[in-house]
Amino acid sequence: MPAFRIVLVRPENEGNIGAVARSMSNFDFNSLYLVSPVPIGEDARKRAKHGNYVLDRAVIVQSVEEAVSGCDYVIGTTGIRNLGERKFLRNYETPREFALRVRRSRRSFALLFGPEGLGLSNKELASCDGVVSIPTSQEHPVMNLSHAVTVLLYELFISNFVREPERAAVELEKENLNQRFALLLESINYPEHKREKTRIMFRRLIARSGLSKWEFFILMGVISRTLDALRK
Amino acid sequence: MPAFRIVLVRPENEGNIGAVARSMSNFDFNSLYLVSPVPIGEDARKRAKHGNYVLDRAVIVQSVEEAVSGCDYVIGTTGIRNLGERKFLRNYETPREFALRVRRSRRSFALLFGPEGLGLSNKELASCDGVVSIPTSQEHPVMNLSHAVTVLLYELFISNFVREPERAAVELEKENLNQRFALLLESINYPEHKREKTRIMFRRLIARSGLSKWEFFILMGVISRTLDALRK
Repeated sequence: MPAFRIVLVRPENEGNIGAVARSMSNFDFNSLYLVSPVPIGEDARKRAKHGNYVLDRAVIVQSVEEAVSGCDYVIGTTGIRNLGERKFLRNYETPREFALRVRRSRRSFALLFGPEGLGLSNKELASCDGVVSIPTSQEHPVMNLSHAVTVLLYELFISNFVREPERAAVELEKENLNQRFALLLESINYPEHKREKTRIMFRRLIARSGLSKWEFFILMGVISRTLDALRK
Repeated sequence: MPAFRIVLVRPENEGNIGAVARSMSNFDFNSLYLVSPVPIGEDARKRAKHGNYVLDRAVIVQSVEEAVSGCDYVIGTTGIRNLGERKFLRNYETPREFALRVRRSRRSFALLFGPEGLGLSNKELASCDGVVSIPTSQEHPVMNLSHAVTVLLYELFISNFVREPERAAVELEKENLNQRFALLLESINYPEHKREKTRIMFRRLIARSGLSKWEFFILMGVISRTLDALRK
């Protein structure tokens, strides 16, 4: 079963923080990280109801990096989809697709939610291993923060978690693969202005595919051999 | 397509009423009935955001009978499941089961949500044509009113939602990519006895990752450039 950490990035409304805590208790999630939040007071406590224990345990940090530290994958969320050339940043999965993809994983995931109204920045989204977006009305796409969290947690809760033997490539190995891929781009004089985009695409492809160790070694072998052949 | 009327029965918190209106706007619902609600003031307006037009049109009535008048079916909701002999009252569908059952219907449905904390009474549930309950934590089953509405509307919305057809790379394109990868293996003198295995690994990896057209073109570009560089 995967582990999830809910990360609220710069939340501006303490009521929403409380409502998120309540929703987490409704769906058996308990790891909440808050990045530079507004102070948590009476209103958050009131809204959290039986989820106050989630608030009690919440970890307050000053940066997204601290908030996701120790997690295998970082998943961003956005209400803004397919914005022309920014599309690659927001090439998203739906909550259901995400839930079905990860339900057999034994990895840990940080789920990032941006501030009310604004959402995560392009830079923050670029550093994510995947992006989830909730299908909504075209006219009124921006959901309340705690509503968006609720929909995602609901989908994760109802997807049947099934255990299966360990098969995922570990973080360090994936990082090696991503670095090797970056080297390949250099070796073939891949246009510089497209390199970052393409590296992000590759990282997400690998993250999404749930690479096994065996597949990892095969893929590393192919890229290493290619690099050798290019050097000749 | 079915028609839906959202009915809040004796809501006690105007903030929740506003949050429900917002959620309705997010999922293209606009018919809201309020049975003996608390007065709607500043807090409801603030929480409704771009869903204020739903509040403007809301119909206030004094009984459930008035609220469901004109609807073909009345569907109750409850957070309390399987209470011994009362089970028959609460013999429920999940939101997904309900959404999948009614999505092709041309009937009208009133969706009843009870007051915060208490929920609908047994008498009210008994008069419903069906009951929907959201799967939740056994320990903390009682959701916030607007969260519960959001999950149900989300399920109804996505049951009619069709994803843009151009997203997935089509079969022929995937075949091209697999062939290009096979060419790469040849070009780098990959050990022959391992080639088939490795081609299968790659094909499955691509199939699993749900490659978009955009990702397909990028990946094709990288492999083609690599082949060109190897030819030099």
